[in-house]
Amino acid sequence: MFSKQPPSSPPLSFSAKAARTEESPISSLMAMALHNPNLISFAAGLVDAPTLPVEQCAAITRRIFADRRRGQSALQYGTTLGLKPLRERLLSHLASLEGRPAAAFGITADDIIVTTGSQQTLYLIADVLVDPGDIVIAGNPSYFVFTGTLQSLGATVHSVPMDEDGMDVDTLERLLERLDDAGQLGRVKFVYCVSYYDNPTGQTLSQERRERLVEVVKRFSRSHRILILEDAAYREMGYDTWILPSIKSFDPDNRYTILTQTFSKPFAPGLKLGYTAMPCDLMHAVLRQKGSHDFGSSNLCQEIVLEALRDGSYRTHLQVLRSQYRGKRDAVLSALEAHMPGGVGWTTPKGGMYVWLTFPRAIDTSARGAMFNRCIERGVLYVPGDYCFHPDESGQVPQNCLRLCFGQVSHDQIDTGIQHLGKVVGELLKTTPIVLGDSLGCCSLNPEPRTRSHE
Amino acid sequence: MFSKQPPSSPPLSFSAKAARTEESPISSLMAMALHNPNLISFAAGLVDAPTLPVEQCAAITRRIFADRRRGQSALQYGTTLGLKPLRERLLSHLASLEGRPAAAFGITADDIIVTTGSQQTLYLIADVLVDPGDIVIAGNPSYFVFTGTLQSLGATVHSVPMDEDGMDVDTLERLLERLDDAGQLGRVKFVYCVSYYDNPTGQTLSQERRERLVEVVKRFSRSHRILILEDAAYREMGYDTWILPSIKSFDPDNRYTILTQTFSKPFAPGLKLGYTAMPCDLMHAVLRQKGSHDFGSSNLCQEIVLEALRDGSYRTHLQVLRSQYRGKRDAVLSALEAHMPGGVGWTTPKGGMYVWLTFPRAIDTSARGAMFNRCIERGVLYVPGDYCFHPDESGQVPQNCLRLCFGQVSHDQIDTGIQHLGKVVGELLKTTPIVLGDSLGCCSLNPEPRTRSHE
Repeated sequence: MFSKQPPSSPPLSFSAKAARTEESPISSLMAMALHNPNLISFAAGLVDAPTLPVEQCAAITRRIFADRRRGQSALQYGTTLGLKPLRERLLSHLASLEGRPAAAFGITADDIIVTTGSQQTLYLIADVLVDPGDIVIAGNPSYFVFTGTLQSLGATVHSVPMDEDGMDVDTLERLLERLDDAGQLGRVKFVYCVSYYDNPTGQTLSQERRERLVEVVKRFSRSHRILILEDAAYREMGYDTWILPSIKSFDPDNRYTILTQTFSKPFAPGLKLGYTAMPCDLMHAVLRQKGSHDFGSSNLCQEIVLEALRDGSYRTHLQVLRSQYRGKRDAVLSALEAHMPGGVGWTTPKGGMYVWLTFPRAIDTSARGAMFNRCIERGVLYVPGDYCFHPDESGQVPQNCLRLCFGQVSHDQIDTGIQHLGKVVGELLKTTPIVLGDSLGCCSLNPEPRTRSHE
Repeated sequence: MFSKQPPSSPPLSFSAKAARTEESPISSLMAMALHNPNLISFAAGLVDAPTLPVEQCAAITRRIFADRRRGQSALQYGTTLGLKPLRERLLSHLASLEGRPAAAFGITADDIIVTTGSQQTLYLIADVLVDPGDIVIAGNPSYFVFTGTLQSLGATVHSVPMDEDGMDVDTLERLLERLDDAGQLGRVKFVYCVSYYDNPTGQTLSQERRERLVEVVKRFSRSHRILILEDAAYREMGYDTWILPSIKSFDPDNRYTILTQTFSKPFAPGLKLGYTAMPCDLMHAVLRQKGSHDFGSSNLCQEIVLEALRDGSYRTHLQVLRSQYRGKRDAVLSALEAHMPGGVGWTTPKGGMYVWLTFPRAIDTSARGAMFNRCIERGVLYVPGDYCFHPDESGQVPQNCLRLCFGQVSHDQIDTGIQHLGKVVGELLKTTPIVLGDSLGCCSLNPEPRTRSHE
């Protein structure tokens, strides 16, 4: 990818942060997919191309540019915070998702910032809060791109197990107690939680835990506020109509939670827009940083999503998406039922685009293992689960899980791909016999080895 | 702007970087302009709204979305580096600006990254190179948004005076010698230079200095490479057809210079796209950081500029822009001739959108001074020059300069605005008599006090 260098000049002298920043493990997977377009890729979290809102965006951009004044405004600079009419619209959008007025959780349109995808928000939040040695708490497993960012900032990531109800808040509470006892509480900056149809597990934090999570961080916020960074990227991609209120909705004064959502997953990643509601003292710091980054995300893209919210095409598109992704989720589950040998477990997401698989411990899913390479040979790519785990106290991470993303994989590919996957696992299990119970302990998402069915 | 906070929760604990990051001084100016839309604002670097390419973007987006496959690709995720066909096009675009094949300065399409405006590049470069206490060298005056970013990263900014030929490279050389003698050379990371129609002075680095600048940083690159960050945001906005080759063109192996350009000034800020050619070892580090920020800028915006480059609308638009801005520059100069009292000097830019004014020392142009406030009362806003200066060894910055941006100001407003400005200066000079020669020393851009005319 990079051109060759003449050998004769001295090296660069990088910042400590650059030196800490590792290549994202997904890069090599994406390069594989790019070099082999015939691969069935369950790896990258891309969205379903045929469902992208091409006609809607055609109509919307026609409308924007037909109005000269509006067209000019779309092509001009905006503000760092984002287009005011869009932020006002997002305020009522959030209120309708919560089923309560925005005032009930203490936010106004000026407490919402529009960013270059919600990824930029995650970065900005971490950057204004974390110094090397500070502590961030995340689920185990969790979204590996962001934990990579945290590591590049020098954060120490402590983790809390995930189960069917999402992050285990009791364990979080005990962890905070231990950190308090160790005099480390002052270094805890925030808890990171993907609250709906989690990446990578597909699980959703239960309502009871949402409320308790806010209560716990409040209680441990003594010298300073410990925040909750609620990543709700998949919130609107639930297959059922009713969705849980956000963690933020349990924080009536907008003091302890940051709620970030995106237009990438539920509308169009190519617009690269996310939005985030946060406490105003934090917003102040985030705005200053974003001023250094770009003083505001693309005005044209903001006008497009504003129009999509206004003219109903966002809502209509979501209905199409939900039914598409539900269909794919069903196809994934059916294919797993049909093709996976006994001893393999998986989650049953109620939204989003991820299924998490757990194998007997004898199966090594890592990129260095036999399974990964045999799958590539058969034309199938997945995300090795070890990318998503934080090491336990002995420095170990489980090597027997994987993430399947069905975002960009067609129905046909789903069955074919999982059939290949099942065959590889079957072959490997023949040569490495299962010890009953040996899938225990990798994570509590799949506490029992299964034979054929699993909810 | 921010909602009120209930008083009862503990404070946030910010990172050292957030604590170092000050509000950009331009924020308060922009808020003023926003709250008083009748102000004639020579402050913000916005572009001319009537010249924005609305029809071109209407046609381009129609074309993109009419092709379903292309529309899908525009709305899908891209890569962190940017759209390959766009980067290939940019490579030949750069070659045509230099009048030489890209191979002559050692770059390929993979040495070019597409970012969210060139501002994002500036941030990323600084972030991967600068640790607190590291040294960056910039012109004095220079682009204050970026020097704000440098300060937030903890950089020590050393400065070199500007004159009609841009940054004074002889002084730079002596500064590097002094830093070397003081054992500080190891901390010097890069030299920041706006090489065409500088922000804020409007001046252009001469060809002879370009070549020498590369030679000087090479010579002082002993333990590590000292880089040149060449900010060429205004490069294509020259009023004459011939423009100088870039600093980068004097670096045949692509080792010492980073060349960043943008579509914001010469096409449309609302697309928020910039592009940068840089040494490949630096690119590697920058890509990792950009992966943490957003894993790639808006694909739709990238498709739009690609199409504008392909179908000739970018080139046609530039011709319109150049003639518009030349007309405005002429209007600014005529108005200054007509309305400014003697003793005031200004630069004569050959491109871009900035004119730099120098007043007798008795005039205080700062936001705390009488001039600024009287101008606001008369409905005129400018950027106080002190925002753009680095303190000298005694910690002083000149208070008798200002920047006029004629980007978004109409011809009518130019004359009216400068008439008001001239009246305020005339009144102030009546009450504070000029001592001959007292404009000396604020910066070498205007070494002689002038009576009426100035080239």
